[in-house]
Amino acid sequence: MNAHIFSQINPPQRLLMGPGPINADPRVLRAMSAPLLGQYDPAMTAYMNEVMMLYRSVFRTNNDRTLLINGTSRAGIEAILVSAIRPGDKVLVPVFGRFGHLLCEIARRCQAEVHIIETPWGTVFTPDQIEDAIKRVRPTLLLTVHGDTSTTMRQPMEELGAICRRHNVLFYTDATATLGGNIVETELWGIDAVSAGMQKCLGGSAGTSPITLSEQMADYIYRRRHVEEGIRDALHQDGEETIISSNYFDLAMVMDYWGSERLNHHTEATTALYGARECARLILQEGLNEGIARHKLHGDALRSGIEAMGLEIFGDLQHKMNNVLGIHIPDSLHDQQIRECMLNDFGIEIGTSFGPLKGKVWRIGTMGYNARKDCVMQTLAALEATINRHGYKTIQGAAMESAWRVYDNHKKS
Amino acid sequence: MNAHIFSQINPPQRLLMGPGPINADPRVLRAMSAPLLGQYDPAMTAYMNEVMMLYRSVFRTNNDRTLLINGTSRAGIEAILVSAIRPGDKVLVPVFGRFGHLLCEIARRCQAEVHIIETPWGTVFTPDQIEDAIKRVRPTLLLTVHGDTSTTMRQPMEELGAICRRHNVLFYTDATATLGGNIVETELWGIDAVSAGMQKCLGGSAGTSPITLSEQMADYIYRRRHVEEGIRDALHQDGEETIISSNYFDLAMVMDYWGSERLNHHTEATTALYGARECARLILQEGLNEGIARHKLHGDALRSGIEAMGLEIFGDLQHKMNNVLGIHIPDSLHDQQIRECMLNDFGIEIGTSFGPLKGKVWRIGTMGYNARKDCVMQTLAALEATINRHGYKTIQGAAMESAWRVYDNHKKS
Repeated sequence: MNAHIFSQINPPQRLLMGPGPINADPRVLRAMSAPLLGQYDPAMTAYMNEVMMLYRSVFRTNNDRTLLINGTSRAGIEAILVSAIRPGDKVLVPVFGRFGHLLCEIARRCQAEVHIIETPWGTVFTPDQIEDAIKRVRPTLLLTVHGDTSTTMRQPMEELGAICRRHNVLFYTDATATLGGNIVETELWGIDAVSAGMQKCLGGSAGTSPITLSEQMADYIYRRRHVEEGIRDALHQDGEETIISSNYFDLAMVMDYWGSERLNHHTEATTALYGARECARLILQEGLNEGIARHKLHGDALRSGIEAMGLEIFGDLQHKMNNVLGIHIPDSLHDQQIRECMLNDFGIEIGTSFGPLKGKVWRIGTMGYNARKDCVMQTLAALEATINRHGYKTIQGAAMESAWRVYDNHKKS
Repeated sequence: MNAHIFSQINPPQRLLMGPGPINADPRVLRAMSAPLLGQYDPAMTAYMNEVMMLYRSVFRTNNDRTLLINGTSRAGIEAILVSAIRPGDKVLVPVFGRFGHLLCEIARRCQAEVHIIETPWGTVFTPDQIEDAIKRVRPTLLLTVHGDTSTTMRQPMEELGAICRRHNVLFYTDATATLGGNIVETELWGIDAVSAGMQKCLGGSAGTSPITLSEQMADYIYRRRHVEEGIRDALHQDGEETIISSNYFDLAMVMDYWGSERLNHHTEATTALYGARECARLILQEGLNEGIARHKLHGDALRSGIEAMGLEIFGDLQHKMNNVLGIHIPDSLHDQQIRECMLNDFGIEIGTSFGPLKGKVWRIGTMGYNARKDCVMQTLAALEATINRHGYKTIQGAAMESAWRVYDNHKKS
C-alpha cells in the first residue's frame, strides 16, 4: 500500500469560491471537534432541542418539526419527498435548472406522476405560470427549488403559498442554496416543507440537512407512521396509509426520534449536529437579516468587478441569488485552463455549470464564511491576472476599482 | 429564545462505555477539523481514492467498490438493500437480535418477500440451520448481522459464503458492530456486501458508513443503473432492469461518483470522509490484528471483573463479540437508577438493551478508542461502588483484582 495514505490529513489551503461547498467557518470546524455524547444523554437530547430552536429562527417558522436529516442536502430532499409522496400522486415541478430536474428524478423514484413546466435556464417563473399549471395538473404537491445554483436564479416564492392553499396543494421548496444568504420566510410564505444543506450560505460542512415541516405536512406524513418492531407500544400505533418505502428517510420515525417520544431510530451523527448547531448560532449572533445583507453586498461587489472586466453576467439579474454569480465564458478563453490556473497558481476554486451551461458559464460563489471582502478582492485579482495571461484584455485597475467603489458606497450609506 | 443556546458547544466529559457510540479517538476529531476541499479538487479525489484503499485493508478485500455512504450505519445497510433487492425478491434473514429485525424491516420496504429464521436472543445459528433455510426458501439474498449489539452475539460467518455460492445466493452482512474489533474476512468468507459504521470499533463519529461490494454484487446492481438527466452520455447508459427506488442510496450512481467516471451525485460529506480516513489509518498503523487482539483483551478483563462481582453474563459466551458484554441485572437492582448514578456521579455511560432485554440486561462496550485498560478499570470501580451503594454486596477487591489478573497474565504471555 502506498505509504502516502498513512500520512496525516493535510489538505492544501483552498479558497473555495465555487457554487459550494465553500470553506466552513473555522469556528464550526472547531465545534465539530467537541467530544461525543451518548444518544440519550440528557446533554445530547438538550443539544437536539437547541438545534430545533435555532433552526426555527433560521427558517423563520414556529414549526415544531424542525430537525436534521443525517445526510447531505439531497438526503433532506429525498426524506421529504419519499415521506410525503404516495405512489401515484401527481406532483408539479417548475424546472429552471439542474436541481429542478433532481426533484423530478427523486419524485419519479417515489412513483409520483411527475408534471413539469420549464423555463429557459437563466429565467424564473411568474406566479401566474405556476398557478395555471396547478389548475391544469391538480397536483397533490408543488415541488420547487428556491435557488438553483446551476443557473444562479432565485424563484420568487412570496405568492406561491397562497396559490397552493387556494388549490389545496402541499408546498415544498429546496432552499439548499439560499438559506442564510437570501430571505427565506417559511411561515410568511406558507411553505409546508423546506430542506437545506450546510455547505453553502450556512457556512458549514456537508453531511447533515436541516428541514422544517408545517403541522399540516407533519400530520400528512404521520398517516403513514410505522413503528419499528420491538419498540411499538400502545401510544405509538401505525397510521392507516401505505408505509414509506425508506426506513432511513421515514420522517414519521425521524419525528418520533427528535420529538418527545424519543423512539430509537438511527444513531444521530453527533459531530455533524455540533456543526449544524454552531452554524445556526453564528448566523443568529450576526443577525439573520445582517447576514443576508452581507451576502448581497459581497455578491454585488463581485458582480461589479466582473462587469468591469468586460465579462457578461449570465441570467436575469433581477432574480439572481445573492450568493452565486454566473459569468459567460468568452469564446477566446478555455474554461478548464482558466479554472486550473486559478486553482493551481492561486489556490482559488471557481466552478463551471452543468448540462447546457457546462464549459459555457463560470459560477463564482460568495457565501457563508466566504461572503467576505478579502475573498472577493482576491478572487477578482486572481481571475483578472489569469484571463489576462490567457490573452483576454482588461482595462488595468478598472475591475478592482469598481469593486472598491461598491464597498465605499456601502460604508457611506 | 433561551440565552443558553447561544453559548458555545461544551458537552460534559463522558466516558462512553455503552454499546456505541463511544468516544471518538481525539486524533479523529482533530482530522475532522481540517479545511474543506471542492468536490472535484484533485486533492479531494485523491483522498477519496485513499479512503477506498484504506477500507479495502480494513474489510480484508480487494473489492474495487469499497466506498463511503454519507449517512449513519443504517444508511449503509439501506443503500445496499435498496440497490440489490428487486421488488418481489425472496430474502432470508436469520434473526438473533434487534438488528436482524431491522434488516427485515428495511427489506420489506424494498418490497422483498422476507423469510425469517429465529433463534433465542443470546444464541446464534449453526451453518446447517442457515443452509436448510436457504434450501427451503431459495432466496436471492441472504441478509445477516455479523454482530448484534442488542444481544452481544457474533454470528459465525466462515462457512456461509460457501453455502451461498452452492445455492447461488448473494450474501450480505452488517458488520457495524464488529469491524475493527473482531475478525471480518470479506474475501475469505465470500461475502458479497458488507456495511459498517464509524461509532463502534472504528473509533470515529457516526455520520458516514463504509461499505464494500464484490464484483458480482456491483455488476448485479449496475443492471439497474440509471444516469441522472443532464449528465447522461454515450458511455454511461441505463441498465435494463427496474430503477432503484432511491436516488440518494442508488449504489450504481454512488459507484459512478466514486469510480473513475466521477459522475456528479451528492456533495461528499468531506469532514466525515476526513474522519473515516483517519479511523482506518490509525487502525492500520496499529495493525488490524493487533487492534482486534486489543478488543479481546479488554473485553476479557471487563468480563472477568464483572463475573467477580457475582454478576451473571448474558448469552452464549462462545459467540460473544469482543467488544460488548451483556450483564443480567440482578432483581434487587433498578436498571435506570444504576445507570443514572453511573452517568451523573462518575460521568460514565453504560447501556441497557432493547425489546425483551430492556431493563433486564446492561450492555458495556470496550471498543475503538475505549478498548483501553483505564476505561475498563474506571468502569469496574464505578459500577462496583454504585451497586454496593444500592445494596448489592460484593467481595471487597475481588472484581478489580480479577481484571488486574487478566492484564498481568497477558503481559506474561
